Amino acid sequence: MRIAVLLYPDFTTLDAVGPYEVLSRIPGAEVVFTAAGRGPVRNDLTSLAITADAALDEVDSADLLLVPGGPGTEAQLTDEAVLDWVRRIDATTTWTTSVCSGSLLLGAAGLLRGRRATSHWGVLDQLPRFGAEPTGSERIVVDGKYATAAGVSAGIDLALTLTGLIAGDETAQAIQLLIEYDPQPPYAAGSLAKASPEVVAGAHRLLQG
Amino acid sequence: MRIAVLLYPDFTTLDAVGPYEVLSRIPGAEVVFTAAGRGPVRNDLTSLAITADAALDEVDSADLLLVPGGPGTEAQLTDEAVLDWVRRIDATTTWTTSVCSGSLLLGAAGLLRGRRATSHWGVLDQLPRFGAEPTGSERIVVDGKYATAAGVSAGIDLALTLTGLIAGDETAQAIQLLIEYDPQPPYAAGSLAKASPEVVAGAHRLLQG
Repeated sequence: MRIAVLLYPDFTTLDAVGPYEVLSRIPGAEVVFTAAGRGPVRNDLTSLAITADAALDEVDSADLLLVPGGPGTEAQLTDEAVLDWVRRIDATTTWTTSVCSGSLLLGAAGLLRGRRATSHWGVLDQLPRFGAEPTGSERIVVDGKYATAAGVSAGIDLALTLTGLIAGDETAQAIQLLIEYDPQPPYAAGSLAKASPEVVAGAHRLLQG
Repeated sequence: MRIAVLLYPDFTTLDAVGPYEVLSRIPGAEVVFTAAGRGPVRNDLTSLAITADAALDEVDSADLLLVPGGPGTEAQLTDEAVLDWVRRIDATTTWTTSVCSGSLLLGAAGLLRGRRATSHWGVLDQLPRFGAEPTGSERIVVDGKYATAAGVSAGIDLALTLTGLIAGDETAQAIQLLIEYDPQPPYAAGSLAKASPEVVAGAHRLLQG
């Protein structure tokens, strides 16, 4: 199984790495990180760079495409070379997936028309721009071969769900145990429905940097 | 607040990136990824590389040190240059932290003698080699300024806990909301106590590659 992960400047790291850590452990999986050009791609906080091992024009198919989100998504929504590549790869995939605002990129490529999808809560209201139907409270949405996750950390849950569908429940659970994914967050503030108004305001301030 | 993240060949990516995604969002945080030399450092699965922006000898202090784990930890346990650097940085930190088998590295540096600590379930029994007292069922252990997390994904919970201690509950919760950390794993197999014997056997097979 060939997995292609799209990188672009100002992506959010955990959007890509969370699902990567799960999906890449499926027996037989091969992962390639790809971007406009080979080399390091800086994330949204600029303190981290992941190497793109292939340029977009070196990757022409994938069984699974993963598009992360981040503040840099916006600039990609009008980049025809990137959108063309996403469409071209999508034509070859069994699964086309996104985390966080990555779903806007799938939308801009025209792949989510008439489909249910999700995204980071901060940009969920933008999905209708692309003909997609946003689902507010679902962390993971699977509509046909299009699987979208809510913000950042939701990609881990998405990847475990997909792993179950791809390789069976037992393999997915073995990977869950391997990465000791037995979450015990010290707070219950991880969704708009659960966070206090003060915390929501604080998160908006952080979003605006 | 200066955060130093140690990279070395064959590290597990999410061990570093999970806590990074949380801690780097604390207002005023500056993060540097550091390794024996500058440049890309390949992870345990070889399909991903993170850039070390500084060599070890360019980093001489940190408020928080984060040591990830992975199959590559073993080779670091006898690397005196790395262990010396860890001791030197530890002398300057407010928090010295690890995820997964990273705690063995702290142990090999002599920092966990007489302390309670945790690690990935696959190597927990090695902690006494270094005079540390393993805690089997705790996902996060804080003993003085030494904070250790269980395997891989446990680093996210560790980082949120530390963020609360460093910047207050409200900031920690705002970051939790920003990364939409409202975990909903599709299975409950994330710990040895919860996984079935078949899943534990499967995880051991995956560990051995």
